[in-house]
Amino acid sequence: MAAAHENPDQLVTSSDPEHPANLIPSLCAKFWTLGWVTGTGGGCSIRDDDLVYLAPSGVQKELMKPADIYVLSLKDQEPSLKQRTYLRSPPLYKPSQCTPLFLAAFTRRGAGCCIHTHSHWAVLVTLLLEAKGSSVFEINNIEQIKGFGKGMGKVGNLGYHDTLRIPVIENTPHEEDLTEYLEAAMEEYPDTYAVLVRRHGVYVWGDNVHKAKTQCESLDYLFQLAVEMHQLGLPWISSIAQIGPQR
Amino acid sequence: MAAAHENPDQLVTSSDPEHPANLIPSLCAKFWTLGWVTGTGGGCSIRDDDLVYLAPSGVQKELMKPADIYVLSLKDQEPSLKQRTYLRSPPLYKPSQCTPLFLAAFTRRGAGCCIHTHSHWAVLVTLLLEAKGSSVFEINNIEQIKGFGKGMGKVGNLGYHDTLRIPVIENTPHEEDLTEYLEAAMEEYPDTYAVLVRRHGVYVWGDNVHKAKTQCESLDYLFQLAVEMHQLGLPWISSIAQIGPQR
Amino acid sequence: MAAAHENPDQLVTSSDPEHPANLIPSLCAKFWTLGWVTGTGGGCSIRDDDLVYLAPSGVQKELMKPADIYVLSLKDQEPSLKQRTYLRSPPLYKPSQCTPLFLAAFTRRGAGCCIHTHSHWAVLVTLLLEAKGSSVFEINNIEQIKGFGKGMGKVGNLGYHDTLRIPVIENTPHEEDLTEYLEAAMEEYPDTYAVLVRRHGVYVWGDNVHKAKTQCESLDYLFQLAVEMHQLGLPWISSIAQIGPQR
Amino acid sequence: MAAAHENPDQLVTSSDPEHPANLIPSLCAKFWTLGWVTGTGGGCSIRDDDLVYLAPSGVQKELMKPADIYVLSLKDQEPSLKQRTYLRSPPLYKPSQCTPLFLAAFTRRGAGCCIHTHSHWAVLVTLLLEAKGSSVFEINNIEQIKGFGKGMGKVGNLGYHDTLRIPVIENTPHEEDLTEYLEAAMEEYPDTYAVLVRRHGVYVWGDNVHKAKTQCESLDYLFQLAVEMHQLGLPWISSIAQIGPQR
Repeated sequence: MAAAHENPDQLVTSSDPEHPANLIPSLCAKFWTLGWVTGTGGGCSIRDDDLVYLAPSGVQKELMKPADIYVLSLKDQEPSLKQRTYLRSPPLYKPSQCTPLFLAAFTRRGAGCCIHTHSHWAVLVTLLLEAKGSSVFEINNIEQIKGFGKGMGKVGNLGYHDTLRIPVIENTPHEEDLTEYLEAAMEEYPDTYAVLVRRHGVYVWGDNVHKAKTQCESLDYLFQLAVEMHQLGLPWISSIAQIGPQR
Repeated sequence: MAAAHENPDQLVTSSDPEHPANLIPSLCAKFWTLGWVTGTGGGCSIRDDDLVYLAPSGVQKELMKPADIYVLSLKDQEPSLKQRTYLRSPPLYKPSQCTPLFLAAFTRRGAGCCIHTHSHWAVLVTLLLEAKGSSVFEINNIEQIKGFGKGMGKVGNLGYHDTLRIPVIENTPHEEDLTEYLEAAMEEYPDTYAVLVRRHGVYVWGDNVHKAKTQCESLDYLFQLAVEMHQLGLPWISSIAQIGPQR
Repeated sequence: MAAAHENPDQLVTSSDPEHPANLIPSLCAKFWTLGWVTGTGGGCSIRDDDLVYLAPSGVQKELMKPADIYVLSLKDQEPSLKQRTYLRSPPLYKPSQCTPLFLAAFTRRGAGCCIHTHSHWAVLVTLLLEAKGSSVFEINNIEQIKGFGKGMGKVGNLGYHDTLRIPVIENTPHEEDLTEYLEAAMEEYPDTYAVLVRRHGVYVWGDNVHKAKTQCESLDYLFQLAVEMHQLGLPWISSIAQIGPQR
Repeated sequence: MAAAHENPDQLVTSSDPEHPANLIPSLCAKFWTLGWVTGTGGGCSIRDDDLVYLAPSGVQKELMKPADIYVLSLKDQEPSLKQRTYLRSPPLYKPSQCTPLFLAAFTRRGAGCCIHTHSHWAVLVTLLLEAKGSSVFEINNIEQIKGFGKGMGKVGNLGYHDTLRIPVIENTPHEEDLTEYLEAAMEEYPDTYAVLVRRHGVYVWGDNVHKAKTQCESLDYLFQLAVEMHQLGLPWISSIAQIGPQR
C-alpha cells in the first residue's frame, strides 16, 4: 500500500478484470443496459478489506473508466464521516453524494459491495406502497426469494415460503441526508440486505460483489414481478401449504 | 473416455463452440439477456450420449466458463438418483439442485438438452392459473405453437389449430424435491416437452440443443402473449374455423 | 452467372457485407434481438434483380450463416410457383414455407426485400381487431406514419395526417397456403407495403432492403403504440386540425 | 478551418472517438437500441463552437457513418435560416428536416448538442396530455428530476421537490414547420431544456453532449414512469413534506 500511497493512480491500475477499479465500470455498463443507472443516476461501490472504490458524481455510468474511480481508506475516515479524505481522487470530478450510504453498508454490515439503482420497478413499488400508506415491501412464495441471504452473520439463504421484507425510507432533497434514515432502517431491519428509497430507487448490498449483484438482480426481478402482479390483481403475500419433505 | 477419466478437465476442454462445455456458457449468457436466468436462477444442461454436462449451483449465469461445468455419466448413476457421482467436478462449487430434474428429462424422455428459466412470463402464467384454480396452461390458434414437437417418438410438430398443453406442478421448498412431481407430470402428459413450476418458472427440453432452445423460446413467447392477452381481456382458447386445404 | 451456376456456393460467398447472403444473417440476428424471429419463426428474403435469396426452414435466426441461404432465379420458376427450382440449396435444410409469400412481394410488387415477423405487437393488433370483427388496421396522426411510402409507383411517403391502412388476412394451417390470401389482400389494397396475418405476425416489404427495414421497424413501432394506446383507452384514429402551411 | 474548407471531408475525419462526426453515429447506434430512433426517425446534432454536425435525412440511425454527416457554419447562415449553406454535404443524401429545430437549440439556447427521439414514452405522454386538454407535462417528487439543469445561465440542477415542466407543441405535417412553435415554446418556457411534440416525440438539448444525453435519458425515464404511474392510477404531481435539513 505504501507504493500505492506514493502514486495513487496505482490504486486503480490493474490488468485483472476482477480488480474493483475494473469491475465497477464493467458492472455499471451492464447495469446501464438494465435501466438501473439511467441519466448518470445510481452507482456501485466495492470494498476490498480497508479500501473502498467509488464512482464519481454525475458520470455516464456505461462510459466510466478505471481512471474515474475514487479510493478511500475506511480507517482514515473521521468518526462523523461528514468530512472524507481520499487516497485517490480523479481530476475534474466531485465525489458522489451516495458515498456515505455506501459507507454505511460497509461499516455497519461488513458488506463488500453496494449497488444503488434508480430502477423503474423499485420506484413503482415505493409508489404503490405509498398509496396504501406502507413503508415495507413484503413478498413470499416466489422462488427468486431464495436469491437472498438470511441476514448478516446467519448461514444460508431465505427459503421459498419465507417472507422477504425490504424497508422503505422517505427521500430527502440531498442524497447524503438519506444516510441517517438508511442507518435507522438497518437498525430496525437487522437482516435486510436492501433499503428502498421512496420515489428514488434502492440500495442493495452483499458480503461480496457476487452476492450483491445476485441480490440486486433478484430484488429487481421481484419488484418487476410485484408491479405486474399488482396490475393483474394478484396479492404479493399468499398462504400456500408446504409440499415436499420438511428438513 | 479413458483419457478423459484420467484427466477430467479434458471433458470440458474443446475449441469447438458446439461442444457442450462451450455451449452451456454461451447459451446461458444469451438467456441472461432475455431475463430467464436472473440472479443465478435457472440454468441449462446438455446430454451427449451417455455424458451429461451441468452448470454448478449459484453461479452468475452470464459469466459462466467451461471450467465451471460438472460432467456425469448416466450409466454411473445409482437407480435412486439420490446420490450422484461425477466424472468431473469444478473446484469451489456445489452441484445444482436442478440436477435430478434435468436428469429426469434425459432418462425419461431421451432429451438432449433441458433448459430451466425463471422467466417472469412463466411465473405470471402460473399465478394467473392459480387464481382460477388450474394446473394446466392451454393455448391454441397461435402460429408460434408450431414451434413444438407433437411429442416424444411422434413425427412432426403441432399445428396452428392444435392446443398446446403445459402442466403446472406446485413448487417445493427444495428444488430437488420437485423431481417426483415433474416425473408425475411427465407421466400424465406424455407428449409435453415442458413443465411449469408454480411461482417459480419452467423446465423445457428437446431432443437436442436446437429443439430445446426453439421450444423454450416459443414457449416464453406464448407465455408473454398469454399474459398480454389476459390484460387485454382476450381468451387463450378460441374456436376458429379452418381456412385453406385439408391435408 | 454462368460461373455461379457451375459452383452454386459462389452465389452465397462474398466479402461484401451488403451482399444478400451476408445481409440476411446480419439482419435476422438484429431482428432476433427485437423479438421478431423468436423460436425459428419469421424470416427475411432479398431479391437482387432476378436472383432471390432465402433463409431455410426452421433455423435459429440469430445463428444463420451465409452457407445456409437458398438462391433461386425468378425466371426459372414455373408460373404456378408450386414447384420451385433452386440455383443453390444448402445441405441438410428444407426450403421455408414462407417462400411463396416472399415471391409474391417480389413478383407482384417488384419488392427488393420482404421481412416476416412474429412480433407480439403485430399478433396483439390482429387479436384486438378480431375482437371487434375488423380485418384492417388503421391509424393516423402519428409522426412515424411518415416511415411508409405512398404505394408502389407513387412518389414520396405518407404524411402525418394520412391514414395508414394494413389489411389482415386469416391464418391457415400451412403457411404456404396463405399465399392466395396475401395476393388477394395486395389486390384489394394496391398501396399497401404490408399484410398482417391473424394470430401469426406480419409480412412487410419495400423497394429495397433499406425501405423494407424502415417500413418494418416503423410498423412494429406503430403496432406497439397501438396496443399501448388501447390499454390507455386512446383511439387509433383521430381528427386533428392541420397546423402549419399547406403545400 | 482553411484546410477543412479546401477539403470538406476533413471536417468529418478524425481518429478521436469524441469528435462530433464519430460521436453522432455512436450515440445514434446507442439510441437505436433504446427505441428512440426507430425506422430512421429521430436524430442527433452536435455543435462545436461555430460548426454544427448533422445527420442526413432518412438514414438507418444505427448504421450511420462519419462520412454521412453534414457540417455547416452558424455564421454562414442567412438570418431567416430558411436557406442553408453547408461546408460539407455527403453525397446521395438530403439534409434532415430536423435541421432548423436543432439550430434553434444552438442559436437561441447556446446548446452544444440536441437530441430528437420518437420514443414511445414521449408520444404516449403527449397523448395522455391531449386527452385532458393539456399542453405541458409536469412531474415532481421523483429523484430523477435532478438530472435536469435549472435553466440556461442558471447554476445547478433541479431539486427533488421541484416540478419539472416540459411544454408540448402540436405536430405539423412538415417537420421544419415545427420551428416557429418550438421557438415560441422556448420563449414561453425560458428554463426548459426540452420540448415535446404531440404524437411525434421530443427534442432535448444541453450545454454539451454529456448534459444533453443525461437530460434525454432522464426525461425518457420520467416519461416511462409517468405512463406506468398513469396505468397504476398514481398522480404525476404530489405534495410531499420535505424531510432533512434545509440548505
